[in-house]
Amino acid sequence: MRPQDIIEKKRDRKELTRDEIAFLIRGYTRDEIPDYQMAAWLMAGFLNGLTEAETQTLVEEMLYSGIVLEHDHIPAPKVDKHSTGGVGDKTSLVIAPVAAACGVAVPMISGRALAHTGGTLDKLEAIPGFRTALSLQEFREVLKRCGLALIGQTKEIAPADRKLYALRDLTATVPFRPFICASIMSKKLAEGIDGLVLDVKSGNGAFMRDFDDARKLAEMLAGVGRRMGKRVVGLITDMNQPLGRWIGNAVETFEAIECLRGNLEGDFAELCLELAAQMLIVGGIEEDPARARARAQAAITSGEALDRLRAVIEAQAGDPRVIDDPQRLPRAKRERTITPARAGFVAEIETDEIGRVVMDWGGGRRKLEDQIDHGVGLYLHVKLGDSVSISDPLITAYYNDESKFDEMAARLQSACRIADAKPRSEPLIKALV
Amino acid sequence: MRPQDIIEKKRDRKELTRDEIAFLIRGYTRDEIPDYQMAAWLMAGFLNGLTEAETQTLVEEMLYSGIVLEHDHIPAPKVDKHSTGGVGDKTSLVIAPVAAACGVAVPMISGRALAHTGGTLDKLEAIPGFRTALSLQEFREVLKRCGLALIGQTKEIAPADRKLYALRDLTATVPFRPFICASIMSKKLAEGIDGLVLDVKSGNGAFMRDFDDARKLAEMLAGVGRRMGKRVVGLITDMNQPLGRWIGNAVETFEAIECLRGNLEGDFAELCLELAAQMLIVGGIEEDPARARARAQAAITSGEALDRLRAVIEAQAGDPRVIDDPQRLPRAKRERTITPARAGFVAEIETDEIGRVVMDWGGGRRKLEDQIDHGVGLYLHVKLGDSVSISDPLITAYYNDESKFDEMAARLQSACRIADAKPRSEPLIKALV
Repeated sequence: MRPQDIIEKKRDRKELTRDEIAFLIRGYTRDEIPDYQMAAWLMAGFLNGLTEAETQTLVEEMLYSGIVLEHDHIPAPKVDKHSTGGVGDKTSLVIAPVAAACGVAVPMISGRALAHTGGTLDKLEAIPGFRTALSLQEFREVLKRCGLALIGQTKEIAPADRKLYALRDLTATVPFRPFICASIMSKKLAEGIDGLVLDVKSGNGAFMRDFDDARKLAEMLAGVGRRMGKRVVGLITDMNQPLGRWIGNAVETFEAIECLRGNLEGDFAELCLELAAQMLIVGGIEEDPARARARAQAAITSGEALDRLRAVIEAQAGDPRVIDDPQRLPRAKRERTITPARAGFVAEIETDEIGRVVMDWGGGRRKLEDQIDHGVGLYLHVKLGDSVSISDPLITAYYNDESKFDEMAARLQSACRIADAKPRSEPLIKALV
Repeated sequence: MRPQDIIEKKRDRKELTRDEIAFLIRGYTRDEIPDYQMAAWLMAGFLNGLTEAETQTLVEEMLYSGIVLEHDHIPAPKVDKHSTGGVGDKTSLVIAPVAAACGVAVPMISGRALAHTGGTLDKLEAIPGFRTALSLQEFREVLKRCGLALIGQTKEIAPADRKLYALRDLTATVPFRPFICASIMSKKLAEGIDGLVLDVKSGNGAFMRDFDDARKLAEMLAGVGRRMGKRVVGLITDMNQPLGRWIGNAVETFEAIECLRGNLEGDFAELCLELAAQMLIVGGIEEDPARARARAQAAITSGEALDRLRAVIEAQAGDPRVIDDPQRLPRAKRERTITPARAGFVAEIETDEIGRVVMDWGGGRRKLEDQIDHGVGLYLHVKLGDSVSISDPLITAYYNDESKFDEMAARLQSACRIADAKPRSEPLIKALV
């Protein structure tokens, strides 16, 4: 078998066999197939498409390029949640402890902030001392002890994905559903899970703006997982405004703690309840959605979920005092509040632009190597459909770089479009797959 | 400018600007853009196409990646011929001396045998001592002295093409007209020519089997050359059987010498006359095709063309005695004649398979690094449409490796399909562009 013949076959729109895809992915992972042949194959796949069988094989080969964890030492069902990325989405910090408190083990391997979207790892690392770079052995031990463990990608997990992702980024082959699916699922299936809840975001703050694109991705992800014998539920959820009120790293950790305290209502708390309930259903703990939600709510009300978060912070070397004393979380030195450009209803929020303001002010990453300022953040005084007068607070910014204030304030103000008519409200959960 | 943004633009079927193509080709030639980004771009171009303007820019950027020769020291018009490659095609060895004898300077930079096709350089190197690796200074001196010079690709000519060709070969991006055109024309236009005659082969021994593909390539090549201010004529010629009677290296050099002696008729001699006449027309030496042919014929009859070949062999350190004493050319030790599978008319010759037999017996190259046995060759006793009886000679093989004889004999026999009906004869010259 020669790589160029496999490239040619895909170039000519023919379906590749399992052996051919295995030859490519294994050879590439072992550095036997050079980047340039893989790059040509990626572009041929991107433009000519991959069939369902090819996508499935790609996922499996990327999965088995590394270690696939098993947690036989833990009798509880193992369930994780994956989100395709959004702005203000700190649900993982809430639902992992909630699910754990309800008897589901959550072996969660998360990502970092990139472009306009936030990342769970960065929110966790806003907690002084918190270690996300555990060894797989430590990961398993924390999972057993706390019922949840929250770490970052390791070298042993899906090494093919790490090489391929870097190559896709430099060859304009990122936004292609089968590759996105293979990247997500090869890492998730390596966690050693029995079930998975997918939160596929759709809207102007998501990578998939279009609902149909999001639905197709959710179906592809769920199909791949189910063919691997996993229970999978996919939710398509609204990302036409930031989730909750806070956007940033430390501030989102704070908001997640508030949610676990039962102090919140609104879209963020609602989505947490729904996702946690789905985790219980996928894990076989509950069957009825209403009962599952009630059980998740009870774990919050009782304080058990917050105790789980406290336990995992301690197990992963973080300072658990942040839970009762949010002042211990980093916070930027300066604080100023922006008012709206005019009075009326909040008709549209350019969610990606809100995320980019946080990034450009130091709270996010353009490239994966960039350093993050965990203390930077925004507070949204308004949500879509709220009415504002000209002197009402719109957004409060917490920042360190004063030189950027005028630019950022202008960007934030124009990212919130105010209109005379109240906009039609969109459902938070748009579909279930 | 970033390579990935240019790749993305081509991925999304947008037309690239001159600056973007220049950025890619210059960066790649200087090793600043890595192979993998170029590979992704090549595949995107292959699958999404290049416009005429993009192709023109690509040719020009590849051309100016290296030295473009000038021959102001030579007053004669400078004209070359390029063939897209076939089996038994030794026309260059005839028409370069003929054109030179008629007052055209021929600065010919040729290629080597590859896959089933032969290469002018290998045929020349069958002449003991003949040097094809001249410096550009030597090239210019030989051209001035003899009116023709016959060399191989040098490092200074179109270095972008050398890098790109190697990459295309390994990324399944070779058979794409704009890339083929850019590869050919960037090298030809660097020779310092005023005009060019293109011999685009069509048929089962050519890279373009289909007439329409060949015509489109001829039009593209001619268009590019004309936009660069050159006089260009393109011929689409038949390659459904080997040209002439001999296939191999030394044996084709012998056949070319015979042609220059005026000893031949048939397709090979006919094509030589036509191509030489077109070189005189393109060079402005003659206007009328009939007069141009007559003048080319006269250069053969008078012996002037043969004298030119003798002169260039001597100037390039070869042994000119091969002209009068063909025994001085290498010849394989063994000789055996194959008969047809049945009696009837020669209805079809699998021309590429004939070429592959020569290659597999040591007379050609699978890869550019392979060594060649110049003495290996075949003699065709028959041409398409000839009638044969069961005991008639079909092909005589000259070879060294006896162990392969049975396999090769079987392949040669089955490559010549004999039928009851005489096939329709195809014109040698199918079209002029």
